[in-house]
Amino acid sequence: MENTLYNRVAEKIIKQIKDDVYKPGDKLLSVRLMSRQQSVSVSTILTAYGILEDRGFVEVRPKSGYYVRRSPAKRHEPPLISQKTLAPHNVTKAQRIMEVMDDVSSSNFINFASAIPGNDFPVIHQLKKAFSSVVRSQTFLGIGYDNPKGCEPLRRQLAKRSMDAGLLVSPNEIVTTAGCQSALELSLRALTKPGAIVAVETPCYYGLLQLIEACGLRAIEIPSDAVTGMSIEALELALEQWPIKVIISLPCYNNPMGSLMPDEHKRQMVELIHHYNIPLIEDDIYGELGYGDKRPKSIKSFDDKGQVILCSSVSKTLDPGLRVGWVIPGIYQEKIEYQKFVSSVNVSRLPQLAVAELLSHGSYDRHLRLAREAYRQRRDQLLDLIDGHFPKGTRMSKPQGGFVAWIQLPKQVSVPKLYAEARNKGISISPGDIFSSSNKYQSSIRLTYSNSWTAERIAAIKILGELANNQIEKN
Amino acid sequence: MENTLYNRVAEKIIKQIKDDVYKPGDKLLSVRLMSRQQSVSVSTILTAYGILEDRGFVEVRPKSGYYVRRSPAKRHEPPLISQKTLAPHNVTKAQRIMEVMDDVSSSNFINFASAIPGNDFPVIHQLKKAFSSVVRSQTFLGIGYDNPKGCEPLRRQLAKRSMDAGLLVSPNEIVTTAGCQSALELSLRALTKPGAIVAVETPCYYGLLQLIEACGLRAIEIPSDAVTGMSIEALELALEQWPIKVIISLPCYNNPMGSLMPDEHKRQMVELIHHYNIPLIEDDIYGELGYGDKRPKSIKSFDDKGQVILCSSVSKTLDPGLRVGWVIPGIYQEKIEYQKFVSSVNVSRLPQLAVAELLSHGSYDRHLRLAREAYRQRRDQLLDLIDGHFPKGTRMSKPQGGFVAWIQLPKQVSVPKLYAEARNKGISISPGDIFSSSNKYQSSIRLTYSNSWTAERIAAIKILGELANNQIEKN
Repeated sequence: MENTLYNRVAEKIIKQIKDDVYKPGDKLLSVRLMSRQQSVSVSTILTAYGILEDRGFVEVRPKSGYYVRRSPAKRHEPPLISQKTLAPHNVTKAQRIMEVMDDVSSSNFINFASAIPGNDFPVIHQLKKAFSSVVRSQTFLGIGYDNPKGCEPLRRQLAKRSMDAGLLVSPNEIVTTAGCQSALELSLRALTKPGAIVAVETPCYYGLLQLIEACGLRAIEIPSDAVTGMSIEALELALEQWPIKVIISLPCYNNPMGSLMPDEHKRQMVELIHHYNIPLIEDDIYGELGYGDKRPKSIKSFDDKGQVILCSSVSKTLDPGLRVGWVIPGIYQEKIEYQKFVSSVNVSRLPQLAVAELLSHGSYDRHLRLAREAYRQRRDQLLDLIDGHFPKGTRMSKPQGGFVAWIQLPKQVSVPKLYAEARNKGISISPGDIFSSSNKYQSSIRLTYSNSWTAERIAAIKILGELANNQIEKN
Repeated sequence: MENTLYNRVAEKIIKQIKDDVYKPGDKLLSVRLMSRQQSVSVSTILTAYGILEDRGFVEVRPKSGYYVRRSPAKRHEPPLISQKTLAPHNVTKAQRIMEVMDDVSSSNFINFASAIPGNDFPVIHQLKKAFSSVVRSQTFLGIGYDNPKGCEPLRRQLAKRSMDAGLLVSPNEIVTTAGCQSALELSLRALTKPGAIVAVETPCYYGLLQLIEACGLRAIEIPSDAVTGMSIEALELALEQWPIKVIISLPCYNNPMGSLMPDEHKRQMVELIHHYNIPLIEDDIYGELGYGDKRPKSIKSFDDKGQVILCSSVSKTLDPGLRVGWVIPGIYQEKIEYQKFVSSVNVSRLPQLAVAELLSHGSYDRHLRLAREAYRQRRDQLLDLIDGHFPKGTRMSKPQGGFVAWIQLPKQVSVPKLYAEARNKGISISPGDIFSSSNKYQSSIRLTYSNSWTAERIAAIKILGELANNQIEKN
């Protein structure tokens, strides 16, 4: 756990709970009183209490306050991310990542590696119907090139939905792309020149690291918390020390950690980019897949100057084979639109129309409700399986949305070795080292839990646990 | 007309015809005799005779030889391309090009600007049927990410068809892309670093110039002939003088000139890239739209070392809204595949499957036969309209395939002015200046003739002619 103020406060209270200063059922001090007692801001206490809640130590009782939980917190603890190596790196893992990808694309593997949605939801049939309907009744061929912004009906639907993320944009302020990766690429290329430094979270989605390398950029990896995401303090420090040109963040249900950045941090990030007058690229691809009642706000919703560029797609909510994504580029719209025009002119028309058709009726929201609940349950099952079968000392993030989890094995476990052994048994996992441009995360893995827990998948997790335990026993 | 050997021979014979040395109906010397008489190679004479034929001075009588035509050659002459300014340029026309594009995307214009296929062919319905059939009977959703190379059924069809272009490749040697522009971008990015010099034809398709600028590259514009394409001699000179990293050529029915590079030149180009050990990117997007009996060979078919990268798409043969293209990357496959993976992971699956479905039966070839004949007739109608209504001294290319023509107006005509006046009358054309990174082609335009000649479109050409004539009268 990173050494920020709220983390220190949270750790202090955890110690008190473990030392029985607070007992199960006890009420914690009110946020205001705790803030006075600790001489820190109310928002710090709110964040600390949020961490306690996420980690299962306390529960909120509406209109009453925070209470220590009666049932003991699960054994799992969130992964610890080191605060070291705050210097820009060239990203040079292309070869290693492609090896992993090659394995993943083989359908013979029991796949925990690809971050793809579960395939057992009825929305696939509704999507198929939407395609049939568009093919039957709409003109999608023989009309030349589209408006460079993309298909108007889709942009209209996206503008409507973006209100859930706290945004108010018109269809003309949205540019469609061939998926979120393409949205990220167009944004990065439009905003940087080779050699520039960009700030990313660590651990960081490997596709983003590949992109940064392909654009000839250098990445500075900002330590990130498994619960609250990118450390604002570390980011602030990095901004002081380095000429960072762009910040890239995945605040809502981060890949690979599953963290959710508190609103207060989002506000602080926006203050920082206003102060330094630089753009922030917000990857919101998991934003609609939260397990809570309310969809979290985007960082962009706190930005009144248009410096946040929101990138997203339907690859995690519907299907990655559609290649339908978008960017809400703020003040950088002209540049990003031009970049899109130059690099592929338009996005394929029919998939955009079919997604627009699906978004226009209630089935998409019904699907989201179904998927969120299913993913929450599947996460809990994964937690239980890890608890039951992985070595003692294993830590795991507890994502509040999305469908990937970050698992930190004891230091004795070599994940490159575990990866190779699992591969031999037909099980694919994402090894931690591909989530950084340095040599970090040699004992971590990312597991995707989007699919239902069949006997085969449960057995595969047990095998992974055995392989890890074997390594420890041999040492 | 460029000052190459075969051009000099051709011009000499034209002079003889005009001076009545050869009279209508006379037979020219046989290729072999002429080759001896002029002390040049047989292939030079063949090319020269080809030029005479293309320009309407002679006709071929099978098993007999070349005869001077009885009917006088049409007034139109191919445009002259200057041989000057052989130095790399930074490309900086982004703004200007986007102005033109904005006009074009408005459907209110009578459009001669966009190079899009005619919309009156039955293939659009067959394509729609292919989409229906795939949606009904194939699994295209819920199966995660594709093989990074792209949809296998499409690659299989493309491998089969590539034999027509003289190629023998397996499906695994093809990578699908979101259109030809994307294929060009992925290839350029994979093969160059910012600051590098690339050689292109001049005039050059503006989308390629935009791409070169976006990649931070510099372009050296190689003079090109309206009949035979890029000048091999000029290219050779440029290669001697500059550290050119990549050559990009559109040899078969060039955009914007409509030229077709003779096989002998293709062979020479391949010799040059082997000698200098550099890649050549071949844009083959119009390759299947020739008016002759045989599909021309690709440059790639002469390359036994894998240094030619062939890029293409169905945007000109079927529909640009599909965004289905491909690259045959030769020895650069790993690099280009990686570039694709990083920039957008996959191409949308359904359009690839639908195109594969269409290619798998005879309707695509039937469509090509129909379209080629229609485009040939529409070209002849354009030639007649230009002859009848454009100012004296106007020169026009006579494309042997595709559906764009390059028209060179007398020097007194300012095309930027003509463009603006036409725009005011609701007519969109492509002004010549966007086809170069220097100040060339201020009196040239590109016209697309893919659509049938309705009364409205005929009237629009007459208006263009009037506007040009008015400019001359005023001077």
